[in-house]
Amino acid sequence: MTSPDSSPETLPLEAQVGERLRARGLTLAVAESSTGGLIAERLTDISGSSAYVIGGVVAYADSVKERLLGVQGEMLRAHGAVSTPVAQQMAEGARTLLGTDLAISVTGIAGPTGGTTTKPVGLHFVGLSAAEGAWVRRHVFAGDRRSVRQAAADAALQLLLDCLDGKL
Amino acid sequence: MTSPDSSPETLPLEAQVGERLRARGLTLAVAESSTGGLIAERLTDISGSSAYVIGGVVAYADSVKERLLGVQGEMLRAHGAVSTPVAQQMAEGARTLLGTDLAISVTGIAGPTGGTTTKPVGLHFVGLSAAEGAWVRRHVFAGDRRSVRQAAADAALQLLLDCLDGKL
Repeated sequence: MTSPDSSPETLPLEAQVGERLRARGLTLAVAESSTGGLIAERLTDISGSSAYVIGGVVAYADSVKERLLGVQGEMLRAHGAVSTPVAQQMAEGARTLLGTDLAISVTGIAGPTGGTTTKPVGLHFVGLSAAEGAWVRRHVFAGDRRSVRQAAADAALQLLLDCLDGKL
Repeated sequence: MTSPDSSPETLPLEAQVGERLRARGLTLAVAESSTGGLIAERLTDISGSSAYVIGGVVAYADSVKERLLGVQGEMLRAHGAVSTPVAQQMAEGARTLLGTDLAISVTGIAGPTGGTTTKPVGLHFVGLSAAEGAWVRRHVFAGDRRSVRQAAADAALQLLLDCLDGKL
């Protein structure tokens, strides 16, 4: 679903997904931990984004992941907040809570502190929930806190773009 | 960016409120409409902000303001989403939902479209909820969408800073 008269690849990811969501009448929710609102901010930086962005949850504390997004406490204890199942449950929880067609999620360690040997600074899981199922991708990003957060936001938007382009 | 002997007043507003929240052991939630996650993003851009930022709700659609934040439908219909009572109820709702000491909110018209004669582009209401009560300030900001959103985020953080400094 590329638009005929512009080159979508030159647009920011938030504009590329916005074009596709609007064209297909789909709605989106966001669940963010480490990015802390950055994805929602980038999506809503585009005028007219209210046509497809319903809203989001910044689930910075694990209590918010549990109480609002329905992430299971046993998942948090068994796998930690920065893990595949938590990213998946965050996306699924946001999609249910906000009643949208699609939802994306991010959980990770933005740094500069908080890393461990098994979960280094930069480790991120980005999730996507749709009617057809859920997907999670694992990344480790280098750079300072701000770069890592931007890269994590990019990764979540790329996952959504790939879904919208039928590449998942 | 900051000089080594910088005084707190030269720090970004999110760092100034962060210092005070941390020192006093207070927690914060955010409810954002027009700023779309920008305030949460700025607050969590600071490493260690998880000590006081619990989370937030990006209530871009009015349905999210109602269902998650408990804004009354009659308030939305009678006053519109960009109004004093809605800003107040968004802040109070976020504080209750996330169980924090304090919550700040923003509702407004970031533009470039969406303005009317009575509610021009740039009109914003920023709210604060605390145990002691609630406060709302009205602003009209000039500039493009990005500038207006940054100014609205500044205004909400300034309201919080004034509260923390006992100036309300």
